[in-house]
Amino acid sequence: MLPKLLTVDEFKAQLATAPDIDQDAEVNAAVLNGQLTKPPGSLGRLEDLAIWYAGWRGEVRPQLRNPQVIVCAGNHGVAARGVSAFPPEVTKQMVANFQQGGAAINQLARFAGAQLDVLALDLDVPTVDFTEAPAMDEQKLLEALTSGWQAVRPDSDLLVVGEMGIGNTTSAAALCLALFGGTADEWTGRGTGIDNEALVQKAQVVEAGVLRHRSQIRDGLDALARLGGREIAAMAGAIAAARMLRIPVILDGYICCAAAACLAETVEGALDHTVAGHVSAEGAHQTLLSKIGKVPLLNLDMRLGEGSGGTLAIQILRGALACHSEMATFEEAGVSDG
Amino acid sequence: MLPKLLTVDEFKAQLATAPDIDQDAEVNAAVLNGQLTKPPGSLGRLEDLAIWYAGWRGEVRPQLRNPQVIVCAGNHGVAARGVSAFPPEVTKQMVANFQQGGAAINQLARFAGAQLDVLALDLDVPTVDFTEAPAMDEQKLLEALTSGWQAVRPDSDLLVVGEMGIGNTTSAAALCLALFGGTADEWTGRGTGIDNEALVQKAQVVEAGVLRHRSQIRDGLDALARLGGREIAAMAGAIAAARMLRIPVILDGYICCAAAACLAETVEGALDHTVAGHVSAEGAHQTLLSKIGKVPLLNLDMRLGEGSGGTLAIQILRGALACHSEMATFEEAGVSDG
Repeated sequence: MLPKLLTVDEFKAQLATAPDIDQDAEVNAAVLNGQLTKPPGSLGRLEDLAIWYAGWRGEVRPQLRNPQVIVCAGNHGVAARGVSAFPPEVTKQMVANFQQGGAAINQLARFAGAQLDVLALDLDVPTVDFTEAPAMDEQKLLEALTSGWQAVRPDSDLLVVGEMGIGNTTSAAALCLALFGGTADEWTGRGTGIDNEALVQKAQVVEAGVLRHRSQIRDGLDALARLGGREIAAMAGAIAAARMLRIPVILDGYICCAAAACLAETVEGALDHTVAGHVSAEGAHQTLLSKIGKVPLLNLDMRLGEGSGGTLAIQILRGALACHSEMATFEEAGVSDG
Repeated sequence: MLPKLLTVDEFKAQLATAPDIDQDAEVNAAVLNGQLTKPPGSLGRLEDLAIWYAGWRGEVRPQLRNPQVIVCAGNHGVAARGVSAFPPEVTKQMVANFQQGGAAINQLARFAGAQLDVLALDLDVPTVDFTEAPAMDEQKLLEALTSGWQAVRPDSDLLVVGEMGIGNTTSAAALCLALFGGTADEWTGRGTGIDNEALVQKAQVVEAGVLRHRSQIRDGLDALARLGGREIAAMAGAIAAARMLRIPVILDGYICCAAAACLAETVEGALDHTVAGHVSAEGAHQTLLSKIGKVPLLNLDMRLGEGSGGTLAIQILRGALACHSEMATFEEAGVSDG
C-alpha cells in the first residue's frame, strides 16, 4: 500500500527512497534472452525492453495482464493569453468525450487491453496565470500530486499517463525552460496547431513566466508548482506512485515528459522505471527526451496528447514480451546456435 | 480468383494491369478523418495509414479481421561461400521451429491475430551459387513466384511476407546492387552477425555475382532469377498476388524489400499497395527504403527477418484503424472544433 502524502516534502522523501529494479530478475532475463532461437541482438530494442520490464516486475518471463492508462485533465489560467488554437471549454468537452468512449485514447486503451481512468481536476477553477503569480500554491500542488498518486491501481502491471488541458503545452514549455535553460523559442511549439502570430505570443508568455519565477525555483517540484498545472502535477504523482509499486511506466509526449522531468530534476534516477513511448511532432519533445535520457520507441508524428502515443507503445512492449516469454530456446528447438 | 501463372511474362502482364486504390473510398475516409475529435493531423502517420488502408479495402471505416503472415524459406548456393554466421542447416531447423510454434514470428503473428503460413521451398536443393551461374532458370523462378502467388488467402485483409534462408542477405545485397547501382560495400551488411573478415568476403561475393550477370538484367525479374532465391521470389509473388486481390501489404526488412524492389523495377507503381513496416538494423535497408520511396513505421533495431518487423507493425495499423473507425466526430461528441 502507498502511504498517504501529507506534505510536498514527504513526497520528495518517498521519491528519494523508492525501490530500484530487481537486478537478479534483470540478469536472469538477459540470460534467457541469449538462449532464445534468434541471432544475438536481432530483436533489437524489443530485447532491451523485455529485460527492463522483467527486472522491474521481478519475473524472468513476465506477462502483461493489467495495464492502466490515466488521463489527467486540468485548466490553465494562462490559456486566457491566446496560446491555444482551441477555447478552454474544450478541456471539459473532451473529458465528456473520454467518459463516453469517443476519443482516440478510448480506442487505443481498449486496443491495448488497458483500464482507462479519467481524472478531471477542478476544471471550473483554472490554475493562476503563471505570468502573474505561481500557478499553484503548495497546498494545491499537494492536492494535484495526491490525485495522481492515489489513482494508480496497486494491481496494475504497467502505467501510461496522459493529459488534456487547453494551454498545457505553454506550461510544459515554461517548465522545460526553467529546468533546462535555453530560450523560450526553443521550447515553444504549435501545440494543437496555432499560427505564427500566436506562436510568437506563446513564446513571450513562456519567457515572461519563467523570468517571474526563476529565482524561486530550486528543484523540479518548485517549477511544477509555479509553472505547471493540476494535470501535470497529477501525472508526476502517478509516475512516482508507480515507482513505489514497481510498476513500469511508458511516458507519452511533451507534457507527460515535462511532468516526468520535474521528478528527475528533484531526485536523480526518478525515471529509471520509465521508457519513452514516442517522440511527438511537438518540436521540443525530442530535446526534452534527450535531457531526460530517453530514446523513444515510436516516431509517428503524433501530437494529440491524451496518452495516445504511450498507449500505442504498449503494443511494442506486448510484442517484446510475447517473444521474450514465449519463444523456444536453441536447446528446446534443436536449432544450431551458430 | 487469381489466374494461374503459366509464364514469367504473364506474371509481368498481370502486375502491369493490377487494380489501383479505390479513390472514392480514400477521399471519403479522409473526409471522415477530418471530422474526428482531435486537432487536424494530430494522429500523424496513423491518419495517413488508416486512409491508405480504407482506400485499398474500399471501405470508409474498415476493420482488420484476417491478417495473414507468410514466411518463405529457401536455401542458397552462395551460402557455401562463408557469407553467414550460421550453417545452411539452420534454415530447415528454423522451419521446424516455425512449425512447432517456437520462433519469434510465431509469437508476433499470434499477438497480431494473424494466420501464419510457412512455405518451405525445396530446402534440400539450394539455388545455384550466383557467382557461377544464374541462381534460377526461368522455370524455377516461375515455380517460386507461383508458390507465393498461390499462398495468399483471398479472404485475407492484410499481408506480411517474411523469410528464412541462410545466405539471403547476400542475395538481397546483390539484387540491390544490380537494380540501383552503387558499390557492393554500400549494400552489404552483417546479416545475422558476421565478423569483419567475413563481411569483406561477403561484399566480394556480391560484387562478383553482379559483375557476372549485370549485362543480362533488363528488369527486376531478370535480377530476381539471376541473383535471388526461391524464398525471395515467393515473397515477390505473394506481394503481387495481394495487389491483384486489393490486399494491403506491410513490408518487412531488407530481404522482403529487395523482393519488393524487383517488382517496382519491373512495373512502376507495383508497390502502391504496400507500406514499410520497419527499418532494419541491417545497414542498407534505409537506403533501399528510400529507393522504393517508403518511410518505415517502426525503427527498433530489429534484424531478425521472418517477417518479424512487418508483423509487429500490424499493431500500428490496428491502432490507426481503432482510432479512425471508432472515434466520435466533433458533432457526435459536442466538442468545439477550434
